[in-house]
Amino acid sequence: MHNSHEGQPAIILVRPQMGENIGAAARVMANFGLTDLRLVCPRDGWPNPKAQAMSAGAIRDTGPVRVYDDVAAAIADCSMILAVSARLRDMEKQVYGPVDGAAALRDHGQTGGGIGLLFGAESSGLNNADVAVCDGLITYPVDPGFSSLNLAQAVAVFAYEWRLGREGTQKQPRADNLSPVANKAELIGLFGHLESELDAAGFFFPPEKQTMMMRNIQNALTKARLTEQEVRTFRGVIRTLAKGRGNRS
Amino acid sequence: MHNSHEGQPAIILVRPQMGENIGAAARVMANFGLTDLRLVCPRDGWPNPKAQAMSAGAIRDTGPVRVYDDVAAAIADCSMILAVSARLRDMEKQVYGPVDGAAALRDHGQTGGGIGLLFGAESSGLNNADVAVCDGLITYPVDPGFSSLNLAQAVAVFAYEWRLGREGTQKQPRADNLSPVANKAELIGLFGHLESELDAAGFFFPPEKQTMMMRNIQNALTKARLTEQEVRTFRGVIRTLAKGRGNRS
Repeated sequence: MHNSHEGQPAIILVRPQMGENIGAAARVMANFGLTDLRLVCPRDGWPNPKAQAMSAGAIRDTGPVRVYDDVAAAIADCSMILAVSARLRDMEKQVYGPVDGAAALRDHGQTGGGIGLLFGAESSGLNNADVAVCDGLITYPVDPGFSSLNLAQAVAVFAYEWRLGREGTQKQPRADNLSPVANKAELIGLFGHLESELDAAGFFFPPEKQTMMMRNIQNALTKARLTEQEVRTFRGVIRTLAKGRGNRS
Repeated sequence: MHNSHEGQPAIILVRPQMGENIGAAARVMANFGLTDLRLVCPRDGWPNPKAQAMSAGAIRDTGPVRVYDDVAAAIADCSMILAVSARLRDMEKQVYGPVDGAAALRDHGQTGGGIGLLFGAESSGLNNADVAVCDGLITYPVDPGFSSLNLAQAVAVFAYEWRLGREGTQKQPRADNLSPVANKAELIGLFGHLESELDAAGFFFPPEKQTMMMRNIQNALTKARLTEQEVRTFRGVIRTLAKGRGNRS
């Protein structure tokens, strides 16, 4: 199913509001040779006639847009996701410019891993939960006094930069370990497993801190770029510890 | 009056149709620090409420948009103009990619010359008369099967590339002559002078070829990057020849 998008980044619009922006994004993706458009919870549903009209044929020509209920589902087949964000976050994430970000994605894609970018909604952008599962941020060199890009313009800049295929200045550290990086479905599965076991063990106290505590854990483990084998190892660790606890209690 | 735009390229939209595109162009210019927006014959007049709304404050914040009746007036204070065009033309014009085009404009701007870009209308683009007075073309690395960019997206790509300020790979030949290149008002004045004298002398035969003959001459002289002094010299040449002809007849 993914063969037509081989080596391409998925462009993932999270909770997009205006059909016109979805259509304009699809059009400029097609201009620069990108075809893998994914939507998470588009406000006005899908299909959207305004998006079709604004796409100037791109949505018809480049195949189906895929729609998902949440970010986890949209990125499940990817193993490297960057979030396009004007704001820097209180998270330890690698921050790229567009040239280096595109180069890092390309490097990763060449190892066979699925790659993609998250773009936030027009008014609210991405929230911290969206960003927690990303491997880094791309920020654009905007004027700090007027930094808010239109959603489709943000897609345009990346699509252009991708098409140019320039070398980044920042070489990616190459892992000695050539085992493939786990995809997001495996990683998010690990997080879910860990969270349920921690919850059962009464780890989250006070309970209102659960979200933030899990986000910190997610950020830390995402940063590790765990391989598939390492994810399996960690799941074994969790099972073992949980069982041990069960035995003791 | 131009001080606030010092060293910046003017973004010149020729016969733009949709206010939304003008506004989106103004917004993305402001995102990447550009403020000199000029319109030639906007279809729906000016000011345009749809442009204002779509600009997200950029038109208000970055100062007046200037409106002109023709391309000649809009580029009069510039001495290097590139046309953004997907189509290559039957003209001997230098063709740049966006990186090299931005670098060439920057090089010229650093000599103190006014610089700018022409963007054509949504449906029809630039015509050959618009392009004849330009010093070169910028084409984007689009998919040949889906090459038509939205107007505001075309502005976005250039504005981003300008902001990055990358070195082009193609170094501009530096003239030994450091006298400034004539601005477009001087050059277009020379063309007008030449055309009227040629017309008086019966040069344009058959008359329906006048436009094309003048365009060829304009293209040839534009390519020469004449200095102010050279323009004065040519005007003297034309006066002298015309007077001589007058004396003989």
